[in-house]
Amino acid sequence: MQTIFNHRSIRKYKSDAIPADTLRRIIEAANRASNTGNMQLVSVVATTKDDLKKALAPAHFNQKMITEAPLVLTFCADVNRMNKWCDLRNAKHGFMNMQTLYTATIDATIAAQNAALEAEHLGLGICYLGTTTYNARQIVEVLNLPKGVMPVTTITVGYPADMPELTERLPVEAILHMEQYKDFCDETITSLYAEREQMESNKQFCRENNKENLAQVFAEIRYTKENNEYFSKELMDVLRLQGFIE
Amino acid sequence: MQTIFNHRSIRKYKSDAIPADTLRRIIEAANRASNTGNMQLVSVVATTKDDLKKALAPAHFNQKMITEAPLVLTFCADVNRMNKWCDLRNAKHGFMNMQTLYTATIDATIAAQNAALEAEHLGLGICYLGTTTYNARQIVEVLNLPKGVMPVTTITVGYPADMPELTERLPVEAILHMEQYKDFCDETITSLYAEREQMESNKQFCRENNKENLAQVFAEIRYTKENNEYFSKELMDVLRLQGFIE
Repeated sequence: MQTIFNHRSIRKYKSDAIPADTLRRIIEAANRASNTGNMQLVSVVATTKDDLKKALAPAHFNQKMITEAPLVLTFCADVNRMNKWCDLRNAKHGFMNMQTLYTATIDATIAAQNAALEAEHLGLGICYLGTTTYNARQIVEVLNLPKGVMPVTTITVGYPADMPELTERLPVEAILHMEQYKDFCDETITSLYAEREQMESNKQFCRENNKENLAQVFAEIRYTKENNEYFSKELMDVLRLQGFIE
Repeated sequence: MQTIFNHRSIRKYKSDAIPADTLRRIIEAANRASNTGNMQLVSVVATTKDDLKKALAPAHFNQKMITEAPLVLTFCADVNRMNKWCDLRNAKHGFMNMQTLYTATIDATIAAQNAALEAEHLGLGICYLGTTTYNARQIVEVLNLPKGVMPVTTITVGYPADMPELTERLPVEAILHMEQYKDFCDETITSLYAEREQMESNKQFCRENNKENLAQVFAEIRYTKENNEYFSKELMDVLRLQGFIE
């Protein structure tokens, strides 16, 4: 499907607003997503107002897409609506736990990708923001997310003002295991990452970061042990705050 | 995009095998998925052999799609390949934690939805199996998943032998919150679930399960507190086993 193979992360947008029927169509695509037992434990917050986007920006490390894109969609795992329905119907429920959170996270992400592809199909550009789970606490505050609602991922949406090259990917052989998982030997790892390591843009990246190789840039600069452990603790704290763990 | 709006979960398949180039195209679609920092912390295990599908079946509560579909794709959050690359390149890494697992889970799910849509675009039918995180321990064993690899979701894939009706969904207003999250009052909850509750098929579902209403069927029969809490404990145990929590 061309939309899938044409995807690039769009980080520069025209200022044009997104028409209401276009937004609705994007959310309808999200709403059609496969989900666990058709419980639809998913919500989407569509933020367009400048003051709220500005308030969200620090949670996304002030990446400028948040304030420049006309539309910010925050996809949430949402047990709150289900709980309310069950309370009204005298149904004894137990959804405030990790398994439900984890499956609702998967459901929210499938919905997000439907929305992303529908937006691209309609001529819009999108960018995923992985920062959503790093600073979930701030997002909970800005978007007024009640207990039982956890922000999972965010996409910025707008008409593209830029069309970057396709991003490189590891060869399919790096991600596909036939029948069972077969762990790679050192030689295979080297061959799978060879093309990526030899790209001039990635070599430049190493020089700029004063690192010997690309793996060090990823592990020692961009996604460090220290940060990953700090944000893991934060994540668990927010899961506690939102009621999914004790 | 028509593929998104036409999706139904296909649970009956023809016995025709899936050609190798079709499988490759599906995995290429997965490989194009947005992901955190382009680290591609994702792997897909493609299982086609009868004995392995039979071994996987109990993990999916013996749903017959597992053995009847010609192809079972298990999408995994995978930090193992990245760790190996970093080890080879003398890069000090720290990916064995919850934040990395959670972001890799999101990435694996985006990849899964790309694969699902590409498969459907090529005339195949798919069904998601949420059971993947319920019985992850058995999947880890059958598929030989090493530490650092966590099964996230599964799709069965094959040529459809059945084309069910579209599944009902809550109205878009149930999942969309403009600007910030606005919690629903009782009257709104009732109106959002009204159509679903009044469907004859759902009323039948209540009678069969001897429950007063649909919310009770979901919360007291299908996804009970007791089961959700049991499978939450299981999930945490498998995350510990695979090295993501201590």
